[in-house]
Amino acid sequence: MSDASSAFPQHIIARKRDGHALTHGEIYSFVRGATEGTWADYQLAALLMAIFLRGMDTAETTALTEAMMRSGVIADLSHVPGVKVDKHSTGGVGDKVSLPLAAMVAACGVPVPMISGRGLGHTGGTLDKLESIPGFRVGLSLADYARQVERIGCALIGQTKDLAPADKKLYALRDVTATVECLPLICASIMSKKMAEGIDALVLDVKFGGGAFMKTRPEARALAEAMCAIGHAMERPTVALLTRMDQPLGRAVGNAVEIAESIACLRGEAGSGADDLMEVTYALGAEMLLLAKVAATATEARAKLAATIADGSALEKFRAIIVAQGGDARVCDDPTAVLPRARFTSEVRAARSGFVREVDALAVALGALRLGAGRIRAEDTVDHAVGFTRLVKIGERVEAGGVLGIVHANDEAKLVAGCSALVDAVAIDDEAPATEPLIVERIG
Amino acid sequence: MSDASSAFPQHIIARKRDGHALTHGEIYSFVRGATEGTWADYQLAALLMAIFLRGMDTAETTALTEAMMRSGVIADLSHVPGVKVDKHSTGGVGDKVSLPLAAMVAACGVPVPMISGRGLGHTGGTLDKLESIPGFRVGLSLADYARQVERIGCALIGQTKDLAPADKKLYALRDVTATVECLPLICASIMSKKMAEGIDALVLDVKFGGGAFMKTRPEARALAEAMCAIGHAMERPTVALLTRMDQPLGRAVGNAVEIAESIACLRGEAGSGADDLMEVTYALGAEMLLLAKVAATATEARAKLAATIADGSALEKFRAIIVAQGGDARVCDDPTAVLPRARFTSEVRAARSGFVREVDALAVALGALRLGAGRIRAEDTVDHAVGFTRLVKIGERVEAGGVLGIVHANDEAKLVAGCSALVDAVAIDDEAPATEPLIVERIG
Repeated sequence: MSDASSAFPQHIIARKRDGHALTHGEIYSFVRGATEGTWADYQLAALLMAIFLRGMDTAETTALTEAMMRSGVIADLSHVPGVKVDKHSTGGVGDKVSLPLAAMVAACGVPVPMISGRGLGHTGGTLDKLESIPGFRVGLSLADYARQVERIGCALIGQTKDLAPADKKLYALRDVTATVECLPLICASIMSKKMAEGIDALVLDVKFGGGAFMKTRPEARALAEAMCAIGHAMERPTVALLTRMDQPLGRAVGNAVEIAESIACLRGEAGSGADDLMEVTYALGAEMLLLAKVAATATEARAKLAATIADGSALEKFRAIIVAQGGDARVCDDPTAVLPRARFTSEVRAARSGFVREVDALAVALGALRLGAGRIRAEDTVDHAVGFTRLVKIGERVEAGGVLGIVHANDEAKLVAGCSALVDAVAIDDEAPATEPLIVERIG
Repeated sequence: MSDASSAFPQHIIARKRDGHALTHGEIYSFVRGATEGTWADYQLAALLMAIFLRGMDTAETTALTEAMMRSGVIADLSHVPGVKVDKHSTGGVGDKVSLPLAAMVAACGVPVPMISGRGLGHTGGTLDKLESIPGFRVGLSLADYARQVERIGCALIGQTKDLAPADKKLYALRDVTATVECLPLICASIMSKKMAEGIDALVLDVKFGGGAFMKTRPEARALAEAMCAIGHAMERPTVALLTRMDQPLGRAVGNAVEIAESIACLRGEAGSGADDLMEVTYALGAEMLLLAKVAATATEARAKLAATIADGSALEKFRAIIVAQGGDARVCDDPTAVLPRARFTSEVRAARSGFVREVDALAVALGALRLGAGRIRAEDTVDHAVGFTRLVKIGERVEAGGVLGIVHANDEAKLVAGCSALVDAVAIDDEAPATEPLIVERIG
């Protein structure tokens, strides 16, 4: 096949259809076609399905990531000294790790340029949580974002239109053509956006289990390995942790309630309350400090992170971010006074004594969705006040009549639905369940 | 999955993507989506690619054929007495079988409702050949078509807009999404149009070799078996012959030149000239007569067909069709006077003596394309006068300086190109080549 003929979309589609690896030029033609509209949507869709069923090797996935990254503006943080490191999570229930983590790592002097997404389906979004802080703006321009990373060491913003526009186009098509759950396409979508942030290194939290996108550990490992391979190929050192997502992370699920829990952690108040949340936060933070070369060992990194809580510098960093982005920083001192509160709350109580065997993360998430804390469709609005707090954790002892969690709702019918969801999500046994490690594997 | 959710295009696409057989309802939803525009083109394209890579079983392909057939009008020939039988060829070079065949079978009293296509790429089209007869109209309405089949026993028309519109939509998409060469989609495309003609039974000429769509016999057999299975499932008895297509069928390739050759056959003039053409015509015709139950054995069927040549009734049937469709019927008496003639002709002569080892059908077809006898794109116009005549056949003895064929062109540069194509297409050896059977297999 000549170079000229291979420029036709249908020839590139046919090559992938027949199981060949696409060339760099073919992949760039596809991504340019998506961005500039020179490929018809039906041709993009046909190639997406061929990629879904035939796969892509690391070189192809890397080229796809690069092409998608270059489809728009790439944030320039070269003027910011230090190794810029971000964290990305594949999404879980109650996963507010980004909030304490960004503040703690930035407080250690590592620039954290973090561009996040909104919640969709059963997973919440960091932007929605941040927007529960009155006044907080996530819609910064890339120029303001770069200035803030330079000045404060961290910015927490949403995706701008000019960042990886090919991903927006292709994701919208994948959503309606049953081509979402495809490893190379997932990898390229995530990595292209992260790489366009202007980062030097990346830490990934790849979750598996009932409340995660990847249901099994082998699937999560495959995704982690594929993303790390892309990161390395693009000379952005990338480390992934595989973490369990069977029960919600922490004890709060929602938006304002997760901000409150994050601030409690930053204030060192959490105590045993959100051990799992801080376990993941410390593990990811240590990897970030190591990649940024501000710590030589994991032990040193953990000590530095712990110091930011003890000396209040992490909380002050979080306050600085809120101030810079227009939010009401008094939330750091008195969350309950500042954050929106739901009109109704109800404690859900245990019908029997025993040990908590299960707190089904997906069931809790679907309950939160029903309360209005999330989105079923991208155009849905989010109720920032509602959700769950004081959730029990697996392995805890409860007595009959003890609290399994508190439901926050703005509507009595939803309150009932939320209580019912929580009752169904929690299982209690006579025996204490075996303890499962939360962080199961490191890939990098 | 609930019935409601499976109505979403993306759920149907996902089921095929994951290798499941689609239900009758899902296939009808897809075809209705294509016809009525309720599925987006990118969703149609994604499912077409999933079908390409995952396949379809006989039940699915039959349902697809039925749904496509029912996407438009189905010709009603129920008022025409007798078993209505058509023939379909997968397309070859010099394949004018439809012309003598339709006349001979109709002359035996079997109604032949024949809706044909135009030439595209290296294969010629029956409609283009017929239109080289001055005045001949192929654009009859389905009502006129039905009346003509009733009155004369045969009509030779082109596809109308209201016949299997889903096929038009899907074929146009397949062409630009690299999903053409897919057995179930090919079968459904062919069979839906044939079934919409109002036939009771069908004979298929499935060609294989260098000049055919299917390059190998196993591919041709798979296509034939799949189409016969659909025909039987739809209770339209279907028989297929696998025929070799390495050299052009007959001695003429073009439009007017193929009409002239067909008339020569109908006049019984062909003699040894077009033995292969008449061998295929008799074999297919015998199957048609057997399906129509006007002959009990192949021998009886062949005798009946031969009688239509001997007594002139086939030629009279052809004349009646031409008259009914507005053509100049004097072509039956004096083809050269009536048919368009090219301005230039040139004899191509053998450089050496020997036996013809090869007359490359594809090379001859591409030569005819260059002369202007066919279409590269669907919107191209056809030059009815040009082509090749008096082509040598494989196995024939030629002397140095003997004629390999005559090139007919309307332009001197094209004449040269046509001669050059013919020289390259013919190979001569010292030894006589082994004889290969033309009709290699019957499937039914």
